[in-house]
Amino acid sequence: MKVGILGGGQLARMMALAGYSMGIHTLCLDPIANVCAADVTKVIQADFTDEKQLKAFAEQVDVITFETENIPLSTAEWVNEIKPIYPTLEALKIGQDRWLEKNLFKALCIPTPAFAAINNVTELEQAVAKIGLPAVLKTRRFGYDGKGQLVLKQATDMTGAWEKLGKQALILEQFIPFERELSLIAVREKNGNIQFYPLVENLHKQGILQLSQAPFENNLLQQKAEGYVQAILNKLNYVGTFVIELFQKGEELLANEMAPRVHNSGHWTIEGAVTCQFANHLRAICGLPLGSTAAKGYSAMFNIIGEYPEQKKILSIPEAHYHTYEKQAKPKRKLGHITINVADKAIYEQRLRQLQKIWL
Amino acid sequence: MKVGILGGGQLARMMALAGYSMGIHTLCLDPIANVCAADVTKVIQADFTDEKQLKAFAEQVDVITFETENIPLSTAEWVNEIKPIYPTLEALKIGQDRWLEKNLFKALCIPTPAFAAINNVTELEQAVAKIGLPAVLKTRRFGYDGKGQLVLKQATDMTGAWEKLGKQALILEQFIPFERELSLIAVREKNGNIQFYPLVENLHKQGILQLSQAPFENNLLQQKAEGYVQAILNKLNYVGTFVIELFQKGEELLANEMAPRVHNSGHWTIEGAVTCQFANHLRAICGLPLGSTAAKGYSAMFNIIGEYPEQKKILSIPEAHYHTYEKQAKPKRKLGHITINVADKAIYEQRLRQLQKIWL
Repeated sequence: MKVGILGGGQLARMMALAGYSMGIHTLCLDPIANVCAADVTKVIQADFTDEKQLKAFAEQVDVITFETENIPLSTAEWVNEIKPIYPTLEALKIGQDRWLEKNLFKALCIPTPAFAAINNVTELEQAVAKIGLPAVLKTRRFGYDGKGQLVLKQATDMTGAWEKLGKQALILEQFIPFERELSLIAVREKNGNIQFYPLVENLHKQGILQLSQAPFENNLLQQKAEGYVQAILNKLNYVGTFVIELFQKGEELLANEMAPRVHNSGHWTIEGAVTCQFANHLRAICGLPLGSTAAKGYSAMFNIIGEYPEQKKILSIPEAHYHTYEKQAKPKRKLGHITINVADKAIYEQRLRQLQKIWL
Repeated sequence: MKVGILGGGQLARMMALAGYSMGIHTLCLDPIANVCAADVTKVIQADFTDEKQLKAFAEQVDVITFETENIPLSTAEWVNEIKPIYPTLEALKIGQDRWLEKNLFKALCIPTPAFAAINNVTELEQAVAKIGLPAVLKTRRFGYDGKGQLVLKQATDMTGAWEKLGKQALILEQFIPFERELSLIAVREKNGNIQFYPLVENLHKQGILQLSQAPFENNLLQQKAEGYVQAILNKLNYVGTFVIELFQKGEELLANEMAPRVHNSGHWTIEGAVTCQFANHLRAICGLPLGSTAAKGYSAMFNIIGEYPEQKKILSIPEAHYHTYEKQAKPKRKLGHITINVADKAIYEQRLRQLQKIWL
């Protein structure tokens, strides 16, 4: 099987690496030169609007997927005429737009913070009056790692907010004083079979994911989250790996956002689950049965952001795994990640403290 | 870091794949066209005696290793003048020759079946008179997967044996009616630190490894085997992954053979150990600290020999992992392997039976 991937970043890189042992080869397409997947698989450098190159790309592969929802929908529609694209066009369309996402949650009775679409300053004022403050103002599209967001704490924060976010379609969301951020990763086969990974607890700093820990053990919340995700995946006739990010307050879970792809909060599955999210995504879209999503022991995944640590020091922890994406270091850029995976919980806690002492 | 690998078969392939996440790149050299590592890394096609290509190869890398002991010693010596080769030249020299191996075992007081060097028919007769029958007659060099071996059950089996094995330097070994074949994989850092994987139980059919199961849990035998391997590794000032194959009879362990490299009976470590044998070999030769060699649950590794099974069927077992080497199918050829890794022993046994029902 040959899988085409739109995008050639670290998610494509890890997908390519997961494919080799199964005999699944990949081919990426990315407008940027020297993307990090090029280190491990073939990449066509071309714009997402270059129909000639898209055709050449699509004709070389059996199925197509994407590693980012920030590709033009028209690109996905175009290649889908040549080879099937997964998860689905519908999932991509919704995953690109926070407003559509929120409406999907609402339609499926999945609790989510109050929200309103904002298309001008007047609508912003009306929405704030209705939802209240604090609230979070976000661009509907292309936001990631905290980009395209403003927290409005008091009425004066509204001044200039519309301009700061580029006078584009926005969404205002109620601010939730959550206890924890959780995510649930799931994968769905073409035949409708869904497997869920255990809940992951995530820690963000300045909008960028710093740390994911799994499994977050809580049967009630696990069941609740699975119910929500199942409703979404079945509604979309989804195929592949999916993630939902949730705010937790006691027994309550509020859907924050979803992504129709493999996800940063699932990188721990490479060492920490029986089958990793990348292998399971490939299995799903290639029509192979899913592997077990059970966790193996306890895992922590730390993103390497901005600068690389000394690899030797990190690997002095016997259960540490170092993943570089071979990117140029740059402030706020995700350059790699480190996973610690330990069978015993007490030793796991100890290793976490050790790593924090060495590195953080 | 860039690691040069002499040989481009499946062991090189899996080493290359293990390197990417650590930022370790590989370059192979192999005389054969389209070897299976070429699917995942760069391969220079050149004879092991092509000094021009060997020079180009060595100059592109930081350190050199090999995936097979069946390379000319002179090749290893030659590249070692340009970049350091690991484990060591001495280990390669001994690992190439059963007679030297057995003498090393003897010198280190490691029990091994009685043996004798054979250089002509008369010496064969003398050795049989001394060691007795049944016995195994083997070529000193280039034997693998049962090739270059004859079992002598009775005196008449001696007739023509010298000719059948090509009139070359041989070794006669006492036949051991063992209970089990075990292997111990270990890895040694430059600073002398040694880590041992748990013992593996191996099943061969017609000289080819069929099934490895780990961990084989027996503290006494584990300690005994570790003592033997430690003696060898320290004696050779060894750097990298190493294996010894042992015959077990009760509390007795007899060294059968060793290999100065990653080994087929260690493939289960990819999913079944905290750090796999390939990653640890790379860590050792690149001067990085070793990762934990602890087993995660219970593992079985089945070689795919001669023909590929239906991947979909194999992967219907949720804890199965399919590893293809992307080789042309051919009788007796190792084409890939399947690993089952399960935390719970009872479920593990069940999965084994399931796999055997589906496939074997």
